[in-house]
Parts: sequence; C-alpha cells; structure tokens
Amino acid sequence: MYSSANTIWVLWAAALVFFMQAGFAMVETGFTRAKNAGNIIMKNLMDFCIGTPMFWLIGFGLMFGTNNLVIGGVDLLTQGAYSDMLPAGVPKYAFFIFQVVFCATSATIVSGAMAERTKFISYCIYSAVISGFIYPISGHWIWGGGWLSQLGFHDFAGSTAVHMVGGVAAFVGALIIGPRIGKFDKNGKPKAILGHSLTLGALGVFILWFCWFGFNGGSTVNAEGDTSLDAMGHIFMTTNLAAAVSTITVMIITWIRYKKPDISMTLNGTLAGLVAITAGCDAVSPVGSFFIGVIAGFAVVFGIEFIEKVLKVDDPVGAVGVHGICGALGTILVGLFSTSTGLFYGFGVHALAIQALGVASVIAWVAVTATILFQIIKHTIGLRCSEHEEIAGLDSTEHGLASSYADFMPSIPTINTSAAKTSSKEVHVDEAVPVQLKTSKTPVASDVKITKLEILMKQNKFEEFKSAMNEIGVTGMTVSNVLGCGVQKGQSEFYRGVPVDMTLLPKVLVEMVVSKVPVKTVIDTTKKVLYTGHIGDGKIFVYDVENVIRVRTGEEGYDALQGTED
Amino acid sequence: MYSSANTIWVLWAAALVFFMQAGFAMVETGFTRAKNAGNIIMKNLMDFCIGTPMFWLIGFGLMFGTNNLVIGGVDLLTQGAYSDMLPAGVPKYAFFIFQVVFCATSATIVSGAMAERTKFISYCIYSAVISGFIYPISGHWIWGGGWLSQLGFHDFAGSTAVHMVGGVAAFVGALIIGPRIGKFDKNGKPKAILGHSLTLGALGVFILWFCWFGFNGGSTVNAEGDTSLDAMGHIFMTTNLAAAVSTITVMIITWIRYKKPDISMTLNGTLAGLVAITAGCDAVSPVGSFFIGVIAGFAVVFGIEFIEKVLKVDDPVGAVGVHGICGALGTILVGLFSTSTGLFYGFGVHALAIQALGVASVIAWVAVTATILFQIIKHTIGLRCSEHEEIAGLDSTEHGLASSYADFMPSIPTINTSAAKTSSKEVHVDEAVPVQLKTSKTPVASDVKITKLEILMKQNKFEEFKSAMNEIGVTGMTVSNVLGCGVQKGQSEFYRGVPVDMTLLPKVLVEMVVSKVPVKTVIDTTKKVLYTGHIGDGKIFVYDVENVIRVRTGEEGYDALQGTED
Amino acid sequence: MYSSANTIWVLWAAALVFFMQAGFAMVETGFTRAKNAGNIIMKNLMDFCIGTPMFWLIGFGLMFGTNNLVIGGVDLLTQGAYSDMLPAGVPKYAFFIFQVVFCATSATIVSGAMAERTKFISYCIYSAVISGFIYPISGHWIWGGGWLSQLGFHDFAGSTAVHMVGGVAAFVGALIIGPRIGKFDKNGKPKAILGHSLTLGALGVFILWFCWFGFNGGSTVNAEGDTSLDAMGHIFMTTNLAAAVSTITVMIITWIRYKKPDISMTLNGTLAGLVAITAGCDAVSPVGSFFIGVIAGFAVVFGIEFIEKVLKVDDPVGAVGVHGICGALGTILVGLFSTSTGLFYGFGVHALAIQALGVASVIAWVAVTATILFQIIKHTIGLRCSEHEEIAGLDSTEHGLASSYADFMPSIPTINTSAAKTSSKEVHVDEAVPVQLKTSKTPVASDVKITKLEILMKQNKFEEFKSAMNEIGVTGMTVSNVLGCGVQKGQSEFYRGVPVDMTLLPKVLVEMVVSKVPVKTVIDTTKKVLYTGHIGDGKIFVYDVENVIRVRTGEEGYDALQGTED
Repeated sequence: MYSSANTIWVLWAAALVFFMQAGFAMVETGFTRAKNAGNIIMKNLMDFCIGTPMFWLIGFGLMFGTNNLVIGGVDLLTQGAYSDMLPAGVPKYAFFIFQVVFCATSATIVSGAMAERTKFISYCIYSAVISGFIYPISGHWIWGGGWLSQLGFHDFAGSTAVHMVGGVAAFVGALIIGPRIGKFDKNGKPKAILGHSLTLGALGVFILWFCWFGFNGGSTVNAEGDTSLDAMGHIFMTTNLAAAVSTITVMIITWIRYKKPDISMTLNGTLAGLVAITAGCDAVSPVGSFFIGVIAGFAVVFGIEFIEKVLKVDDPVGAVGVHGICGALGTILVGLFSTSTGLFYGFGVHALAIQALGVASVIAWVAVTATILFQIIKHTIGLRCSEHEEIAGLDSTEHGLASSYADFMPSIPTINTSAAKTSSKEVHVDEAVPVQLKTSKTPVASDVKITKLEILMKQNKFEEFKSAMNEIGVTGMTVSNVLGCGVQKGQSEFYRGVPVDMTLLPKVLVEMVVSKVPVKTVIDTTKKVLYTGHIGDGKIFVYDVENVIRVRTGEEGYDALQGTED
Repeated sequence: MYSSANTIWVLWAAALVFFMQAGFAMVETGFTRAKNAGNIIMKNLMDFCIGTPMFWLIGFGLMFGTNNLVIGGVDLLTQGAYSDMLPAGVPKYAFFIFQVVFCATSATIVSGAMAERTKFISYCIYSAVISGFIYPISGHWIWGGGWLSQLGFHDFAGSTAVHMVGGVAAFVGALIIGPRIGKFDKNGKPKAILGHSLTLGALGVFILWFCWFGFNGGSTVNAEGDTSLDAMGHIFMTTNLAAAVSTITVMIITWIRYKKPDISMTLNGTLAGLVAITAGCDAVSPVGSFFIGVIAGFAVVFGIEFIEKVLKVDDPVGAVGVHGICGALGTILVGLFSTSTGLFYGFGVHALAIQALGVASVIAWVAVTATILFQIIKHTIGLRCSEHEEIAGLDSTEHGLASSYADFMPSIPTINTSAAKTSSKEVHVDEAVPVQLKTSKTPVASDVKITKLEILMKQNKFEEFKSAMNEIGVTGMTVSNVLGCGVQKGQSEFYRGVPVDMTLLPKVLVEMVVSKVPVKTVIDTTKKVLYTGHIGDGKIFVYDVENVIRVRTGEEGYDALQGTED
Repeated sequence: MYSSANTIWVLWAAALVFFMQAGFAMVETGFTRAKNAGNIIMKNLMDFCIGTPMFWLIGFGLMFGTNNLVIGGVDLLTQGAYSDMLPAGVPKYAFFIFQVVFCATSATIVSGAMAERTKFISYCIYSAVISGFIYPISGHWIWGGGWLSQLGFHDFAGSTAVHMVGGVAAFVGALIIGPRIGKFDKNGKPKAILGHSLTLGALGVFILWFCWFGFNGGSTVNAEGDTSLDAMGHIFMTTNLAAAVSTITVMIITWIRYKKPDISMTLNGTLAGLVAITAGCDAVSPVGSFFIGVIAGFAVVFGIEFIEKVLKVDDPVGAVGVHGICGALGTILVGLFSTSTGLFYGFGVHALAIQALGVASVIAWVAVTATILFQIIKHTIGLRCSEHEEIAGLDSTEHGLASSYADFMPSIPTINTSAAKTSSKEVHVDEAVPVQLKTSKTPVASDVKITKLEILMKQNKFEEFKSAMNEIGVTGMTVSNVLGCGVQKGQSEFYRGVPVDMTLLPKVLVEMVVSKVPVKTVIDTTKKVLYTGHIGDGKIFVYDVENVIRVRTGEEGYDALQGTED
C-alpha cells in the first residue's frame, strides 16, 4: 500500500536533486576558462549518464542489499524487492531514482576539482567507478543498514555520504593530477586564473540552493504524520538559514582579508553552508543552524586558502573546500549541535565520537580507493592531457569544438604559460635555423629615427615576450587579438558531423614604437623568444614613424617614448 | 470531489512542463548565432504567449470536445464542463493548464528548425495555427477520445502527439523556407555553422531533462492508489534511464565517426532518448528503456546526418531529428517493447501495427496541413526574411536590437556569405563608377620594396575577399574586427523606447604585407571584389614597410613573405 | 494535526519562490552592463542572505504578531507559536519559509532600479531595513491581521504587499540616487544603455514565470477540499493567461510605437502581467485575467516611458514600471474584476474603494520610510559610488574583480561618459603641462601628403574625442579595442584570495587617415580633448601613407578621403 504523499514528496525531491546537475555544470564551467567550457559541460553530463546505468547495474545493490554490515549485495540490474529497505509507502523505483540522483551528485563533485586538465576518457572511467563502487559501499555503511548506521552515525541527507565522498575523491584526484599550467609560479605562489562567467557560476549556485530544498527536505522520504511534516518545515528552515548565514560570513571574511567582498568566494560560501547543514538539518535548531553557517563560512575560506597556498593543490572551483571540508565539518558538528544527542545540549561526547569515527572511516575508505583508482588510470591510459592540449583548451583538443562561444572574440590570455613546451612534431632543422640575413635596410636606432614594430605571435607566447621586452627596456606596447589567416593543413574537426573550416587562427598582434631601444635588440630578442622551429612562430614588421606625441606632457619624438606609462 | 494528490501532482507537472520553454529557448539560442539570439528568445516566448490564448479560445475544445472521432468540438473560451474527459479528482483548469503547456511544447519545436531566417510576423502566425488547430486535432485522435485512442494507440506522454507533431511541422517548415545562407556550398555540401553558446545550450538540455520528469511523470494525471504510484516511480525510472543511455550512445557514435566525442550532438542525444521514451515510459521495463535509449541514440545521429547531408534540409538545432524521428520511432517501439502488448514480449504484431498506423496518420495530417500553412504564408506575407536581414542578423533587422550582447566584441564571421547580394537601394551610377586615377605614387612591386596594405571592408565580404587574395598569390593576412565610424543616416533603432546611437558600424580590417605580388594587382582585385556601388564598400590604405622578419627561419625582406604559413 | 497536502503544497511553493531570486538575478544582470554583472549578482544574493536572518530575527514577528492592527509584535528569533496565524495543517517553520521567500522577493526588486551606481555597503544596509522593518509592517496590515485585512482589502498573493512595496522603494531609491552617468544628455533626453545579455535576461523571465506558479498557486497555503483545489487550478489558469496576454500586448504596442517589436520591453511585459494578476488571481475569471493582462501591458510600456522621459528617473531594468505601477494597478483592478466583489460584476464601488485605500496607504508608508532610509544613508556613509567607480564598473571597484567575463574581449563603449570627471589624484603640474615642442618633422597637410594618425586613448574619452573630430572635419575613423601594456602601480586586487595580475589595461585605438584637415589641427584637438594631466592620457602616432583608394568610386589620394562615408 503506497502513500500518495510520500511518493509525491520523494519524486518531487528526486527531480530537484537531478536538477543539481545543472547547478554543478554552471558553477564548474563559470568558474573555469572559456576554452574548456564545453568539456566541463560534457563531463557533468556524462557523470550522470554513466552513473545512472552503473547504479542500476550494480550500485544500488551494493548500497541497499542486506547481506552484511560492510557491503550490500550484488544484485545486477536492481531486480530485488528491497522491501526491508524501502521507506514506508514508497515504490521501489521511486526510491531508486531518489538514490541515483544523490549518487550522481557525489560523482559530479570530482569534475570541478580536476577541471581544465583531465583527459575525457579517464574522467568517464573514474566517474563510473565512483558511482558504481566507491560511493555505494560507504553509502551502505551510512544509509544501507551498514555498520555506521548501526552505531547511530547521523548523516541525515549526506554531508558525508554524498558531499564528503565527492570532496575526498576530488582532493585525491587534484593532488595526483597536479596543478594547471600557470597556476603556481616558480616559487610555488598561486596565481589567479579567472573564471569565464561568474554570472553563470552564480546562476549555478542559485540552482543548487533551490534544489537543496529537495536534497535535504526530500530526505525525510516521508510526508505523512505530524513528525514528518514538522520535520519537513524544520529542515527547510535550518537549511535556508545556514546557507544565508554562511554566505554573509564569507562575504565579511573576504571583505576584511582581501579588502573587498569577493564574489566567487562568497558564492562558495553559500554552498559551504548548504553542505555543512546537510548532515544535521533535521537535528539542530535554527539557532544551531545559524552557528553551523558561521563555522562553515570560516572553514571554506581558510580551507580553500590552505589547500591552495599550503598544500599547493589546484582546485579550480573550490570543490574540496566546499564539499570535502564542510562535509566533514558539518557531520561532526551534529555531535555538538544536535538537540537530542549533542554535546552542547548536555548529551556528552558519545554522539560526537561516533560522528568523528564515521567521518574518519569514510575519509579512509575514499582516500584509499580513489588513490588506487587514479594511480591505475594514471599509469595505464593516463589521467592528464598533454600540455599542448591544456594550453589550447580541451574543447578543441578533446571535442574538436573550435569554441563554445564561436561568435565572441576571446580576450588575450594573461596567464604565464611559457613554462609549457608544445609537443607537436618539429620541422626539419634546416628550415628552422634562423638565417642571419642583414640588408642595408635593417633599421638602427638613433635619437632622430622612430620605428614602429608590429609583431604577430601565438597567444601562448605573449607573456614570455612581454617579460623579455621589459628586460630590454621596452616599456609600452599595444596588444590586440587578431586572426592570422593561412592555409591549414591536416585533419579537420567536426561539428555535429560536419567538417569545420578553421583557417583563421587566433594570434596576438603587438605594436611597439621604439626609439631609445635599438630596433635590432628588439628584433633579436623577439626572435629568441618566439622561436620554436615550428610553423606559426610569427612575423615581425618594421615601419618608420614620423612622430609621436605624449598627450599628458606634450612631449614629442624621442621624449614621448620614455617612461613606463603613456 | 477533487483529490489533493492528483491536483497537486498535475499542477506540479504543469509548472515543470511550462519551464521546458526556458529549456527550449536556451537550446535554440545556444545552438545558433549571437546575431539572432534575441530573435530566437522572442520566438520561444511568443509561441507560448500566443499559444495560451489560442488554446483557450478554441484549441482545448477541438482537442477534448466529445463530438466525434475525428475532431472535438468548438467551445470558445473553453467554457464547457468536460466532466467526461477530466482525470479523476482534477479540476478543469488544472487539467487545462496541464494541456496548454504540452501544446506550447509542440509549437516551440518548430522555431528551432526554422531559426535564423524566418520572418517574425510569419512565425507568430504559424505558431498560432499550430497551437489552435493542427496540434489539437491530432491530439483529439490520441488523447481526446478520437479514433486512434479507440484503436488502442498508446502514446503515454506524447512522443507522437507532442514531439512528432512539432518535428514534422518543423521539417516541412525548414524544407519550404530553405537553408540558411552559407549552410551548403556550391556542391551542396553542408558547412558547419557553430552555435554561439554551447554552455547555454547545455543548460537548456539540463532544464529539459529536469522538466521531463513532469512531462512524463505528470502524465499519469493521477497520484492515488498503488497502480498510479507505482507507475509514477516506474516512469521516472525508465525516462531517466533512456535519456542517460541515449546520451552515452551518441557520445560513442560520434567518438567513432568524428574521432572525438561531439558535444552538441551528444546534447541532442539526451533529448532523443527523452523524446523516444515518452510514448512508452509507463509500458516498457527498465531493460526496455535501456534499449530504446540505444536505438534513439543511433536514430538521432544518423537522422540528423540524413536530413542535412542527403535531404539537404537545414535544421540548425536538430529539431527534426530529435523530435520528429525519435518521436515517431519511440511511438513505434512501444509495439515492440511494451511488456503488456509488445511483439518482443510475445503479444504479436497487433500493437505494433496500431502504433505504426497512428504515426503514419499523424505524419500525414501534420505534413499536409503544415505544407498548406507555410505555402500560404510564403505566398502572401512571405516566410523568409531578406538576405540582407539574414546576414545582418534578425536581432537588428527584426527587433532593432544592436546586439543581445552589447558589451562583448563579436568575433569575425567565418562562414561564406558571399553568395548573398545585399538588396538595399543602390547609389547613383555617377557616384559609384570607379575612377581609374593613376598617380605617380601608385606603388609597384619590386624585389626591394615591401608594401603594407590595410583594407577596411564589410564583414560579409571577407570570405570572398580571402578567396580572391589566395588566387592571386597572397598567402598571409591578419584580420581584426574594428568599428568604422561615420555619420549614420536614416531611421534610428529603439531600445526600450529610447533611440540608440549606432554610429559605429562593425567592419573587418585586413592587413597584408606584400612584396612578390604586385601591389597594383592586389588593389585591382580588392576593388573588384569589394565593389558593389553602395555606401560602405571600403577603403584601401597603402604603406611602406621597412623590413619583415620571419621568426621561424630568420628570413628577412622579400623572402620572409613567401610560403603559406608564417 | 498537520496536513500532508497542505504542507507539501506550501513547501513546494516556497522552494519555487526562493528560485525567483535566480530569475531576478538573471533579469537584472542581463539588462545591465557587463562591467557590473558580478556586483548585481552579489546584491541579489545578499538581499536574500541578509533578509533571511533579519526576517527570522524580527520581521516575522512584526508581520504576524497579533498585538494590534498597525504592527505585529516583537518576537526575537521567531520563537512564538503563532497558532492563530498559521494556515490549517501547516507547521510553523513551513509557513515561515514560505513567508521569508516572499519578503526577499520584495527586497530584491530595489536592486534593479538602483543598479550600476549604488555602493555595495549601502545596499546591504537598506536591504536589511526593508526586509526587517518596512516590508513586515505593511505586510502585517495586509496579511498579518492588520487594519487593511480587517477592512477586506484583497491582495491574494502580493501585488501590493510584495511587488508594490518593492517597486515604491525602488522608485524612491532611484530618484534619490540619480541617474547613471550618460543616461540623460545635456537636454535631459534619455539615451539607451544596452543590457549585456538579453539572453540571460530572458532566461530570468522564464524562471520568474515558472516560479510564479508557486508564488500565486502556493498562496492558497492549503491543498485540501474542493474549494482549495479548484482555486489552485483557477489560479494557475488566470496567472498564466494574464502573463501571456500582457506579453502580446506589449509586443504589439512596441511594434507600433517603435516600428519593431522590442525584445527587452516585451520581457518586461511578461512580468507586468504576472505582477498585475497576483492580487486577484483567485478572484477574477479567465476573461478578467485576459483584460488585466491587456491593461498591464499598456501600463508597463507607458509607465516605463513616463518614469524615464517625464520624471527623468533612471530605472535600468524597469523595476518601478513592472512592480510599482503594475502592482498598484493589479490591486486596484481587483475592485473592478473580482467576480464576487467587483464593480464590473455589479457589486458597487465598495471593494474598489478599499483596494484604492490600501494601495494609497502602502504607497505612503513605503515612500515615507524609504525616503528617510535612503536620505540617512546618503548623508552618512553615502548611497552612490564615485564617478570613477561607476565608469570603471562596480565589479572592479567594489569587488576587485577584473571582469565577470575574463575570457571575452569587451566591446567599445558607445555611451557618452565624457561628462564624468575622474577623481583620482592628479599628477604634478610640471609633469602634466604639455611641452609645445616643434620639430622639423612635424607634419603639415598638403594636397599631396596623406598622413595616418594612430591615437591610443582611454575608453571613456572616446565619445568626446569623436565629437571633437567631427567638429574639425574628420569624418572617418577606425576604432578598435586593444590592451595597453605598462607596469601598474599600487594595490593588487584579489580573486579568491589570490592577487590578480592586471598589467593589461583596456584602451581604445583610433586610426584616422587625413589629408584635407591639417595634421596639426588634429593633434592639437586631440591633445586638448584627451588631456587631464593624469597617467594614461594616451599617445599619438603619426605615419606617412602612400596612397588611399576608395573602393566604391575608385577615387585615390586626397579625393578618397572626402565625404562622410567610406
């Protein structure tokens, strides 16, 4: 005898939790660069699409089979009845769909931390393993009747079972794969790599908050009787309050630490509050949720800084800080703030100890299995794409997509990518050796003559070039994005099955007007920096200039070119 | 006596199905070009806004009136009681709103296939006819007690009634209106026209999947009793599984066929699975839905290729392949996979025959009426906008909107639009005839002199220009987007009622440095290509260059300019 | 004894109304400029995050306390039972969450009207006061058992209580803060400032429409019994119909008035219909909702024009027209169209008078308190950011975010911002005085010589420069966006706690080729316009040009440069 209220409630929640995939996709793509936008979308899509059949094939059985305390059972294609495990009045497939969307949430967290450098095929594989094996086992411990649930471990909607599992796997993955090119400078100091659309990132956060009402609220899996109905309202209340307070907390912390309220960190703050309240949303009071929000706010800011600045792990979207740290923290805080078992309410340390044990056990489980998983992938098919692919962007190299935003002019990259060496095949030595041809027209610098140089180069050489020019004394330049046009060789890319013409290659055009610095020095330095011996190294054009006037001072000619600012 | 559960369920689902409009809007705009983004949004908005009163005025009566087997009844403003047709315990207007959102879904499909070239006024008209007449009639056959429903035709949530109706109308429309300029080359070979935001397209797909739980799940229009509740869970399960499997299938197919997993086609794959499972989501097992997903994946890839490469029909977003082909296929597959009537379950061909008959009948109905509709529009007010409008983009020409993305620099168009002839009024002959003025300063090529040419031209002339330069031997050029500034004449455009200054016109600036090719040849060829006799044909600037150095080889002067790559 | 149906219904609606925050965020950011995108997102996020604890701390008690007719009670942290005020069968916190999302909707409206120029800290403060004090008081009158509810004032889901409160506060705020720089020209004529993403704006409108089913439908706060269930269907019907009709109405009006259907105004039209039907969605017939939609369409177009053109108040997103005017109007129209009390149904003017009284009272309340609030802020910490901040954009100045769209090239600003004077510190006079150095190479104009000038300038000087050039007879120029490169001084900005390199500063590069106009005149005029005495005023480069050819006429040299169009 099924219950209308319970089934509607569970299915409503399942649909919302599914929609979290959209939220994660927007957050992850918005917080990373445009050249990888399609790739990240694709990963978010595929983890759900791979996770669904994997969880059906084996995961659900591993999680909810009743064989023993450590592992469920093997039930291929989820054919069992699970009558002992199903919530009252909820049909099996309604419960399955509710569980599968939670599983996919856990899997999708990993893609954010490993964004912009992971091979697509490798992503598909580890996503399948997480959904079909790693998540269901620890899930069995917590929600499937396993040993943690027997001990009274309380993780209502999955701060540990879902978020921390994803966050720990994300940390292991980001650690093993290493940072993105240009993320840390030679001294190991992190550099900012700006996301390409904070607007979409924020939309993702709003979507996630919206869906969290289903995530936490729906986890009653029951909507009948005063206890359940009261709990539903209570859960909405604490979930919402913790998220709001955590957001404010992060805003204030960043305002103080960075002088200005940081937008992207504040958006992480919202998610931090949501993750942290998830374990105890039913068990803590509104006042408790307020404090959990405050604590989560501190944890996420300092956690993300710690991961990046101390551990030197590159997590582009802050997934480890949000889901890993706040997931663990939120679970443990139940032992303090639970009004029925918490230390702060006079119930001693028992619950706190159980919570800590649960968190530690799940960290151990995921850390070990994820390490094995990523290391196997790394040493077989490889985990990370090539430097060339990373610099060019995964959209073009992994998916043959010229750009996810074909109609918009890309901006000039500002991150130092000079450390990267392109690995495409070199041209023959004879072709590549620079001929030191001197013509009578080679310009020389004098105090009379002003010369303009236009240098066309690859985008990824620009930063190195700029440094080199600064060293030889060139202090001003004008930079623009242009398209270099030439006959392209080799294999075409496809878009929806149709070959794409890509004869226009993005280049950077630098214009410099020099007088004091000898033109020959500029040319020689430029050649040295740009030279790789490959097609497309660039060209230098030299023009005579009649005059230059600096507007601010009225200086003309030679004088107008001195100093560091125009 | 109304039912709380049923009414909540139906209204919840109606809200979700409404939200599919947002999903369609994002998919359609994301898969097309930025210059038409506002127009496509507007069409998606208007089909719902026009469809709603049309369905209220007449459509609902035509669909659910009980007069006879072929057509419902005329019930202006839906004033009847429909007590025989209403689901148990559901108020009339709750059912109406559930139906109107389905109707609008069908209508909105057409806009995608006819995007980027359809006159806005014509769109409004045919959208009204589809919502108020074409959809309700076939809908009556299937869901309104008409002849197909009497025969036992099974289309649970509308693979045929909603999606295929939209898909067939979309095909007829795309066929009659013809392909976008530049979609096919002279040999009829399709060319890729990239969408302007795959990120938003993907967001749309996630929204649609989310809403499909309402679309299919809500179609029980009942949430009481074990049968309904079990069905609800079952439908969520099969819907989700088919979508996931279809997505994976398409990813693998494109990976094999195009060497790399194609993002936009994979997104179509998700929708293909959702459309295909819609007819039988209640009737097939999870295993059946798995196979329906696989089949839909194949159907959508090869269907879209067939439509484009063989039939030469230009469907920018793949609407015909997704909704038309997979809608028909999914309906027919019920005859194979239904666990209670399907051939594969030993129930013979009866159901399969009925399904095929239903599909064929509805195709015939829609194909005939849509052909009449589009031909009438074509021969009266016109279906297609002018070439000038299409090249300039419908946002500016149809809506007076300079750009939907005013703050972003547009990229340089890479599609051959040279076939288009602008149809604006010509200037007087005397003004337009080129004066063959030769001055003593006309540059000539020598092995000493290097000349730079800057050519400012209209964006739509660029491709033709590039080809012409290649023919005369110019192999390298630098291209950038600039704004040409002049006093604009004529009527202002309005934005929110306020005139917009649009004195900056987008132009392409090409810079070439030549030495071998005579400058005169370049100039003459350029003039020939760019000349139309209209204001804005462009200008050519000629400069002396002191020297050029090719970085890769160190060649200078004349030598540095030879070869096809810099 | 709680009710499953009622609680599910209320919580479902609360989640949807929460999601309106995403809709507002998208509408407001899409309708404004990219340089403020992050700031607007942040404001939308913070009003909810601040409003939630404020409403919990004090607002709910002020609104629903039962002390008297004018003001509720002070109930810190909402600890009371409110058993008299709670809807039947709905737990307290379920009702609280439903109310808090309504409160936040009201607060968020203000941010749109004051967008692009309000100090962030000031926004946070006034948002807190609106949520915690202004909204709850008038809310008490209407929904908390206060004097208006006693009189029979009918505002079912909050045309007045939510939308008009927000709209009036928005008007007061926009009036006091003044228009954005460049919004009105010297004669007070408004100029268009285009939004940066109408696509996201439209997505926001779709989200809002979707959520409005929860906003209006959920306001039954009951889903049991025939009366409620019938009302729910009815509300969905009237809400949807009014929105659709209002949208069409606006489209037609703009088509007639501006010659073309205006996209952004039509999107406002959708919201206008939704706001207007909110008060009477339960009380008017579908036919009534049709006419309310038509009236709202007229009101919003002429209302927005009136506010902008007559009152000269700058409301970037049309919030006052949509929420203020249509909120008031929709409330009053209940007195005409209510089928149980309305004038048009023969019930006399009593209801109409009550409705008008209620609207007038709430306008008075909000206008007075908001004026006091904004004036206090203005005269203490300040309401408006500096001109420099406004021109540079609030993302960089308020949040240290280089751009919300770091990977995209920004377009060239087309709005006259020359009225603004930057307020950064001036450099020393000696450095800044222009030296009138004349060299023998100073170019002079002749009928033989053609000279090219390249001028590098700040973006915000461009419009003034263009006007000046037109005045001295320069009629053609080519403009592009470039990045000027120099060593930046001073404090770094942070992104997620990491300093951001910002050595590339966006500049405008203007290229002009002159022959008739003396080069000296151009240079002198340029210097005069660009000179401010600050670092970064720009540079002028002068080149010799060999020849110019006008393609259209074939004219060369001097002749090719005459006339206003190329």
